[in-house]
Amino acid sequence: MSEGSTFGSLKHLLVGRPIPSHLAHHERLSRVTGLAVLSSDALSSVAYATEEIVRTLVLAGTAALTLATPIGMVISGLLVVVAFSYRQTIYAYPGGGGAYIVSKENLGPVAGLVAAGALLIDYVMTVAVSIAAGVAAVVSALPGWHVSRTEMGLVFVVLIAVGNLRGLRESGRIFAVPTYFFLVSLLALIAAGAWRAATGTIEPVAASGTPTPTGVASLGTFLILRAFANGCTAMTGVEAVSDGVPAFKPPEARNAAATLLTMAGLCVTLFMGVTLLAHAYRVIPLEETAPGYETIVSQIARGVFGGRGPLYYCVQAATMLILVLAANTAFQDFPRLSSILARDRYMPRQFMNQGDRLAFSNGILVLSVLAGILIVAFRGDTHALIPLYMVGVFVSFTLSQAGMVRKWRRQKGPGWIGHALFNLVGTVSTCLVLLVVAATKFAEGAWLIVVLIPAIVVWFLSVRKHYARVGEQLSLQGWTPEPRRHNTVLVPIGGVHRAVVQALQYAKMLSTDVRAVYVDVDPKATEDVRRDWERWGQGVPLVVLPSAFRSLMEPLLEYIEQVDDERPDDFVTIVLPEFVPARWWHHLLHNQRALLIKGALLFKPNTVVTSVPFHLSK
Amino acid sequence: MSEGSTFGSLKHLLVGRPIPSHLAHHERLSRVTGLAVLSSDALSSVAYATEEIVRTLVLAGTAALTLATPIGMVISGLLVVVAFSYRQTIYAYPGGGGAYIVSKENLGPVAGLVAAGALLIDYVMTVAVSIAAGVAAVVSALPGWHVSRTEMGLVFVVLIAVGNLRGLRESGRIFAVPTYFFLVSLLALIAAGAWRAATGTIEPVAASGTPTPTGVASLGTFLILRAFANGCTAMTGVEAVSDGVPAFKPPEARNAAATLLTMAGLCVTLFMGVTLLAHAYRVIPLEETAPGYETIVSQIARGVFGGRGPLYYCVQAATMLILVLAANTAFQDFPRLSSILARDRYMPRQFMNQGDRLAFSNGILVLSVLAGILIVAFRGDTHALIPLYMVGVFVSFTLSQAGMVRKWRRQKGPGWIGHALFNLVGTVSTCLVLLVVAATKFAEGAWLIVVLIPAIVVWFLSVRKHYARVGEQLSLQGWTPEPRRHNTVLVPIGGVHRAVVQALQYAKMLSTDVRAVYVDVDPKATEDVRRDWERWGQGVPLVVLPSAFRSLMEPLLEYIEQVDDERPDDFVTIVLPEFVPARWWHHLLHNQRALLIKGALLFKPNTVVTSVPFHLSK
Repeated sequence: MSEGSTFGSLKHLLVGRPIPSHLAHHERLSRVTGLAVLSSDALSSVAYATEEIVRTLVLAGTAALTLATPIGMVISGLLVVVAFSYRQTIYAYPGGGGAYIVSKENLGPVAGLVAAGALLIDYVMTVAVSIAAGVAAVVSALPGWHVSRTEMGLVFVVLIAVGNLRGLRESGRIFAVPTYFFLVSLLALIAAGAWRAATGTIEPVAASGTPTPTGVASLGTFLILRAFANGCTAMTGVEAVSDGVPAFKPPEARNAAATLLTMAGLCVTLFMGVTLLAHAYRVIPLEETAPGYETIVSQIARGVFGGRGPLYYCVQAATMLILVLAANTAFQDFPRLSSILARDRYMPRQFMNQGDRLAFSNGILVLSVLAGILIVAFRGDTHALIPLYMVGVFVSFTLSQAGMVRKWRRQKGPGWIGHALFNLVGTVSTCLVLLVVAATKFAEGAWLIVVLIPAIVVWFLSVRKHYARVGEQLSLQGWTPEPRRHNTVLVPIGGVHRAVVQALQYAKMLSTDVRAVYVDVDPKATEDVRRDWERWGQGVPLVVLPSAFRSLMEPLLEYIEQVDDERPDDFVTIVLPEFVPARWWHHLLHNQRALLIKGALLFKPNTVVTSVPFHLSK
Repeated sequence: MSEGSTFGSLKHLLVGRPIPSHLAHHERLSRVTGLAVLSSDALSSVAYATEEIVRTLVLAGTAALTLATPIGMVISGLLVVVAFSYRQTIYAYPGGGGAYIVSKENLGPVAGLVAAGALLIDYVMTVAVSIAAGVAAVVSALPGWHVSRTEMGLVFVVLIAVGNLRGLRESGRIFAVPTYFFLVSLLALIAAGAWRAATGTIEPVAASGTPTPTGVASLGTFLILRAFANGCTAMTGVEAVSDGVPAFKPPEARNAAATLLTMAGLCVTLFMGVTLLAHAYRVIPLEETAPGYETIVSQIARGVFGGRGPLYYCVQAATMLILVLAANTAFQDFPRLSSILARDRYMPRQFMNQGDRLAFSNGILVLSVLAGILIVAFRGDTHALIPLYMVGVFVSFTLSQAGMVRKWRRQKGPGWIGHALFNLVGTVSTCLVLLVVAATKFAEGAWLIVVLIPAIVVWFLSVRKHYARVGEQLSLQGWTPEPRRHNTVLVPIGGVHRAVVQALQYAKMLSTDVRAVYVDVDPKATEDVRRDWERWGQGVPLVVLPSAFRSLMEPLLEYIEQVDDERPDDFVTIVLPEFVPARWWHHLLHNQRALLIKGALLFKPNTVVTSVPFHLSK
């Protein structure tokens, strides 16, 4: 396979070796690895959720910061409710209960598409927000790097994209390291902080950055709801376990459910721990885009561990790693959902996984480009990205939970009322959060997502309609092919040389009706061609076309039209010699006339353009 | 010609209607129109030449500005010398004596290529500098527009490029308006200024911009030479008349010579007038990139006409228009020289004028992109661009004059010594200027051009070498074509539908050895294809290939390889059904498998890939 291997090795370099069919499901997750692989998105939000609450409250003055703890507790409560709601999805959908599937099956295709659109947005935002927050963790530890935040974010996107294109996801188990490193670091931080609080050795930390505006708003219901809405970022990623049930070792559902509850418990612990420590250390949020920026987690870690020592750097490194890992999960989810949507003909079939990894590569590329654009547009500012993040997340939460309620009501299995009630509480909670988020963050960017989701749904439907139409037009049902009897072969030539002679040899094999066509723009050159034709024309008649305007293309196209009119239903084949240069840049030195002719004839039925390659060796 | 017309009208929209051959030379220039068409480049340099001298002198303090007048007089003297030198070229080359032709004929091909490279750079720089100076004239009159200098420059480039693509150059006579408008405005300005000087009514003008640094250097020889080098921009464009001799009415040479001397006289008058007025008004140069920037011509016009009144705006508008016109001449010269170089095989043949305007369009596009890049890179700052401008100009001047000296010496016609002496003085003068320019502006950017010219020459030679090699490989001399007897036709299919049936109909016309090829990735789907084949296969054998890695491409490529090995010297044709969607964006909804297959087989000899179009109507 000497020729195919050029293509093959290029593909391998970019997307890695193909996986033989029988090895596709070789790796099942235990509870320990499952937690590591599936919880990074949920756990990593601890890095910014508390900060988002505090940033909003401080607008009403530092006194308002006492409200962070009760708001955090409400969010923790909701998180537990949603986790128990998703636990039911795990048992009901042991094959994997993503929001798209649950919504489509129970609420109808449009609800499914709304959930799918929301999820695709969610994945893009997960990448952008997680990487922005990861960069924030880095620049908190290394303030000198603050100037290159956007560039650093883009480097992360490229690294993760290339990792995934090369098949990083096959080695899921190495993901255990950053997750458990983060858990241990954060739990140690919280424990040490609690010890300091108990022993009364807490001293406020001083930060060198620019504080966010404070005392510019009054402390009303709207502000508190905004702070609550921002804090609900802590709940993102909680659905990951229910999507991934079939990846667990048997009994899949039981292992997944246990993992989900463990994850929810850890989330609540870390989130409340950080929130309480932020209060204890009277930490003030800083402007992310100003020099000297430091995350709240970084400020706390400095306070607890007494400055930038080894333990402090552990916390920052662990935070950065789990955030990158969270971004990485989106790089697996986005192509997978795209592939499912493509299978259902709602997305272009280039995203459908047809055997090798090419389809996933398309998803990975689209995701990285979109996330990269967001990072550049928002200059890698986590806080500015958050309003766009939440709407998509809570639309899919709500639809998925509502779908579960509908499922229980329809199936009416044993104990269905209890099940339905559990999910109903989940639905109502997430729907309320959705409304609060959409209302309080609308002007800050949530409107964009509110507009975007219906637009994506319309696009999904138009793609499906297109494929349905193509299917009709290709259908053999009740169709009789027109008989074709004749193939007129034309060989346009610009001179007489080896490539032309070879193209003529080929053309003569295709049909008994072959004609060479030459456009006369210079009588002297035409004379030469006629003379050479006697010797090299292989008996093929030479048609010389006059050109009033010295144009080469137009007389040729007119002649093709005329030939086609002779037998409208039969084929006309244009055989062109095509140079294949020895170096790619030599292409620039040859007229792209073949391309022009092809372009001009593209919309002409029954006309086939064939290039006979002539290989230049130097 | 219903199909060709899609292509035809697109081309007409972009490049204008084609010109019938017999109308190509319908317009000859009188002395009056010749001056208008050919002198804009030379005259327009008055807009910035004085300013370039003053900018440099002021570095040694405002007292040094008294040197501007003597420097201006030296430059004027040189300009007259060079004009007389070029006057001889006009008589010696009545067919047009561009630097490329004169150098090539008399000094050899490499000298010709050096001149050609220098000229191409010159044309790009003419566009960039003229447009930057035109924008400077606009923002001097309308200070509020200062913020959009780069954008305005790009808009000018695009407008001139589109105008030329659409065939603006056919209507040469309308160019008389801006040239004479500029001449009248500037002569009026100088006359009014002279009157004020004579009547002692000159008052210094106050400008609001930031003055350029002053008194930071000492007044030594180097500084004076730098000021001189900068002022030599006044000489750019003087060669234009000698390039365009055949465009004049008979007697061509006499008319051209008279036009050249008139132009030189006008250049000297305007340049010295502005220089003297700058001195009389004690005008100080301003920072071009700082707000409040105003050109020296604008400051003088404000002083002479007492503020921004109608006469002031006339001067600014005329300056802007003639600068745009100067840029426009480069849009005719660049494609013309490229076409000549392409005819001589030193540039890709896409630049060769082969009848219609497409070749010129390529030249126009390349020129606009390069000039646009320069304007963006230098933020439309005239002063920053000047160092790059001068080297190219004076290299071509020197070579062209030196070529003339050689010509006289070789021909030894009557009075050859006098002729040769005239050109020798021109050669030595321009060569000295070249050395001064290269030395004093080296660090400011001239080094780039010093490096670029040899690089372009190497490129010219490598292009020519490539075409020579291709010519050898295509030569029929002593060549015997290999006999070809067989054409194996393969039709890869992904299912059975109308497009496949049509492709099979076509394939059966090409050869008696036709095989359909299907890759088995799903036993159920394969079963369906086999069943449908019985009814729709038209007797063509179906080859089913196994795929261990669920890949579609690799088994297919391996099979093609195997078929090729059966008869290594004969043809293999791959017939693919290709969808032609009803809307261009529908392309994105179909797999580009045909493209992938074509790409994979591109470098395989004797393998032809043919797409049979299947037209989707909705």
